Amino acid sequence: MKNVIVLLSGGLDSAVLLWLCKQRFEEVFAISFDYGQRHLVELKYAKELSKIAGVCEHIVVKLPHYSLLNDSSLLNLERDLSQSVESSVPQTYVPMRNLIFLAIASSFADEKGIENIAIGVHALDSPYPDCRPEFITSAESAINAGSSYVSKTKRRISIFAPFLGMTKGEIVNLGKSLGVPFEKTYSCYAGTEPPCGKCLACTQREKALFEAKITLR
Amino acid sequence: MKNVIVLLSGGLDSAVLLWLCKQRFEEVFAISFDYGQRHLVELKYAKELSKIAGVCEHIVVKLPHYSLLNDSSLLNLERDLSQSVESSVPQTYVPMRNLIFLAIASSFADEKGIENIAIGVHALDSPYPDCRPEFITSAESAINAGSSYVSKTKRRISIFAPFLGMTKGEIVNLGKSLGVPFEKTYSCYAGTEPPCGKCLACTQREKALFEAKITLR
Repeated sequence: MKNVIVLLSGGLDSAVLLWLCKQRFEEVFAISFDYGQRHLVELKYAKELSKIAGVCEHIVVKLPHYSLLNDSSLLNLERDLSQSVESSVPQTYVPMRNLIFLAIASSFADEKGIENIAIGVHALDSPYPDCRPEFITSAESAINAGSSYVSKTKRRISIFAPFLGMTKGEIVNLGKSLGVPFEKTYSCYAGTEPPCGKCLACTQREKALFEAKITLR
Repeated sequence: MKNVIVLLSGGLDSAVLLWLCKQRFEEVFAISFDYGQRHLVELKYAKELSKIAGVCEHIVVKLPHYSLLNDSSLLNLERDLSQSVESSVPQTYVPMRNLIFLAIASSFADEKGIENIAIGVHALDSPYPDCRPEFITSAESAINAGSSYVSKTKRRISIFAPFLGMTKGEIVNLGKSLGVPFEKTYSCYAGTEPPCGKCLACTQREKALFEAKITLR
């Protein structure tokens, strides 16, 4: 079956991923997470992007346990967002976020028989451990080993992570060719409208859009 | 560091695991999940067991997304609990439950620097795909690949699954030698007090307790 569930934050990368999946798969679901992130406003953009893309279903999942964890500057408003990308693991790392997101997406995949889970991680310019190829490979193994769908059907659930070897600039160029409405995406860690323009997410986004000669309306 | 976070349902197996961890580790945390299970009453037992065992902290995590998934007879009250253990995957399977539980436990492990996650799965007499050794091994790989704690410290987070090669009878005998208060555990899928005595969890429990010559007060 050519179906997929896309992890959709509402940001630039996951929007390009959603448009790519619309092209590659017959049936597209989207899933977004409310984990108490500083930039919860991104979910409004995820909803709008899902609507424009015409997905079968946009699932929004709450993860209340993250209120108990607050080392991350994306979860704790008293933490500073200004740390640079050079650190080994940035302050914006949210503990095991991608594993939790993939595991929950896989629970929907398992029950609904969705054979692909798409995630917009890119390792080349990302400092997060859970964006690396070795993480994606082992998460896929764990999902397949634990799934009743796989056990019953002898089929596989694949993680589709097409941006793993791409830079943010290349992702934006792909999005341009796919007609992604970049003005409907939101990437700012601070969660302000308009975006702060200063955080790592804003500066990386602006650089990539500038280099791809994209001017937002 | 000899610390551990124990996945504690309030059932017989996880109680034995908790007592074993009290013996093996210096610092013991417990984590339980409210995922809308039919037998939510088990959390009351988990709380009481945590208190008796004297854990550092008992974390209870809500997983509201399971209300959107209802193929499992543990989540959907209209489904029958009576299916036997012989089926390839039982009706009581909850999609990707153990991966989600381990991933969330690992988010606490990652932030608090807890180097072991204990889970009471036993493969010998369990029909669930997410109770098999190959699942545990791959989940451990995914956790280590995605963790910032591992990335920063170059240490490991291990999954401690000491019951993998044991039968339920052997687990009960171990619990007996450790002084587990079996009367404070709860295993019934139906969620009634007293337990229904008829579901798979009840019959397996009674058989194991009978064979170990344990009479509950």
